[in-house]
Amino acid sequence: MTNLPSQDDIKHAHGLIKSHIRKTPIFSIDGAAFGLDQPVDLKLEMLQHSGSFKARGAFYNLLSRDVPASGVAAASGGNHGAAVAHAAHKLGHTAKIFVPEISSPAKIKKIQHAGAEVVVQGERYADALALCESHQSNSGAIGLHAYDGFHTICGQGTLGKELEEQWGDDLPDSLIVAVGGGGLISGLASWFGQRIKIIAVEPEQSCALHQAIDKDEPVDVEVGGVAADSLGAKRIGTKGFEILQSKLHESVVVSDNAILRAQATLWHDYHLVTEAGGATAFAALQSGVYSPPKGEKVAIVLCGSNVELEKLAQSNDLL
Amino acid sequence: MTNLPSQDDIKHAHGLIKSHIRKTPIFSIDGAAFGLDQPVDLKLEMLQHSGSFKARGAFYNLLSRDVPASGVAAASGGNHGAAVAHAAHKLGHTAKIFVPEISSPAKIKKIQHAGAEVVVQGERYADALALCESHQSNSGAIGLHAYDGFHTICGQGTLGKELEEQWGDDLPDSLIVAVGGGGLISGLASWFGQRIKIIAVEPEQSCALHQAIDKDEPVDVEVGGVAADSLGAKRIGTKGFEILQSKLHESVVVSDNAILRAQATLWHDYHLVTEAGGATAFAALQSGVYSPPKGEKVAIVLCGSNVELEKLAQSNDLL
Repeated sequence: MTNLPSQDDIKHAHGLIKSHIRKTPIFSIDGAAFGLDQPVDLKLEMLQHSGSFKARGAFYNLLSRDVPASGVAAASGGNHGAAVAHAAHKLGHTAKIFVPEISSPAKIKKIQHAGAEVVVQGERYADALALCESHQSNSGAIGLHAYDGFHTICGQGTLGKELEEQWGDDLPDSLIVAVGGGGLISGLASWFGQRIKIIAVEPEQSCALHQAIDKDEPVDVEVGGVAADSLGAKRIGTKGFEILQSKLHESVVVSDNAILRAQATLWHDYHLVTEAGGATAFAALQSGVYSPPKGEKVAIVLCGSNVELEKLAQSNDLL
Repeated sequence: MTNLPSQDDIKHAHGLIKSHIRKTPIFSIDGAAFGLDQPVDLKLEMLQHSGSFKARGAFYNLLSRDVPASGVAAASGGNHGAAVAHAAHKLGHTAKIFVPEISSPAKIKKIQHAGAEVVVQGERYADALALCESHQSNSGAIGLHAYDGFHTICGQGTLGKELEEQWGDDLPDSLIVAVGGGGLISGLASWFGQRIKIIAVEPEQSCALHQAIDKDEPVDVEVGGVAADSLGAKRIGTKGFEILQSKLHESVVVSDNAILRAQATLWHDYHLVTEAGGATAFAALQSGVYSPPKGEKVAIVLCGSNVELEKLAQSNDLL
């Protein structure tokens, strides 16, 4: 049995990071659009610093571990890279982010804008990761795992503590969460335990958790589809899987079409911008893949907004 | 003395419309970015149905007045038109919206999407308005004033009641609000009176309130600039001006550059989409045109999000 995060661990994380992160609002929308007679709570975590929940784990890592003068390093062309860059900059640490050449110029610019040195090298993610690890050995810089570290899971788990503060005694029945490597959902499951039903949602084409549940252990999977840039983990985190095995209520998958339709609906009807991965949990409710009973009080985490607006602008046709 | 809205009138409006509108969230952000040592509350009213606060006034008009079988009519290619279309559709009334030929295809599509019949005719707004009035006389359809009606001001004033419910006893010191024809700000002033400082913000190129204050009466003004499609009223409403003469704390104007920078900052740093008019109040704080003392608790209404994302996507260069 490895060391798994307790509520106290998450409280400790929250105490350290709370002055550095945003308490993101809850937006209650009419449940009738989904056949429900209760409002649906959208947790607007895509308004977090750097545009995703990842800032929580990044700050907790940097505030609770010794950071050498050589700073921190991460391999990521996406939300993790942006979050590490932001947190390091705010705390006065040097950050070097390794991104593969396939990353979009917009995301690279975002990481640079957050104040980090960006090394664009290597064809794929694995090449960037190798370069990052080599830099860590040579320089002594510390690395931050995107989802499978103890501190990372505790940091993401602070979203659960924050939600409970906002809800008070009025917890929802279910909480729908998108899954990539499993850091966020296992943090939330660590906080809530089985007090609410935690529903995991993955894209059909990137579903490391769903396949791990099927095989009863983490396995390498193919990744692809519209949300691969944020949810495309090749293998679910070991710690996360251990937590979820006892605490997850249900694992579902959604099609790319359902994700794109969710993203378009969130913009056109609710005026909220999400990236594909950030709309994936909403897609499960909208498409009926997760179908709660009429009286159920449902909450959904919208977890990321790092999307190119030009792309989202083309989504009119989907509605 | 005309009949001006009281708190009781606004409570009545709220009771009628509350099941039809969204209670939009407050997002508290760090005030340090603006030299403040208190958080700044952003009221995310651009998440309202149809993308602006205008839905409040539209619903209250339709729920408190007799609507004939010939339905409702409005002349507007913008937020008012979209709000009337939405409210009429939801309440089962026929709506005919007259828009001038200069209106953007995207806004026309939005009004159609909301379920209204759109008549695109006439070169300018005044032509569309004349067509609308002629339709009203011929058909008996009722018209909804965009800002100067008693019901409209009471409806917009429900935003104040909602804010007070959200704040409880912890009211901010000041509330910064963008002004076009004055419907929203006079509704808020009717609710709060002088319990908080109400700050009016207009674009330099469309400042009907600022000029009315200067001349001590409503006057026709030139309108133009980046926010003219939502804030470009030629003359401040008569009722609104009467309310504001006793209840407004300060009137300021901001440049188009400040508005565009505010809009870009809200997207890039806070992941919120606003139209130019919706970012105008924020621009007053960001640019220092309104400069509160360090300890002041400031709140800002973000009032509209009906922007073409392609345009906002180009705002990177402004930061």
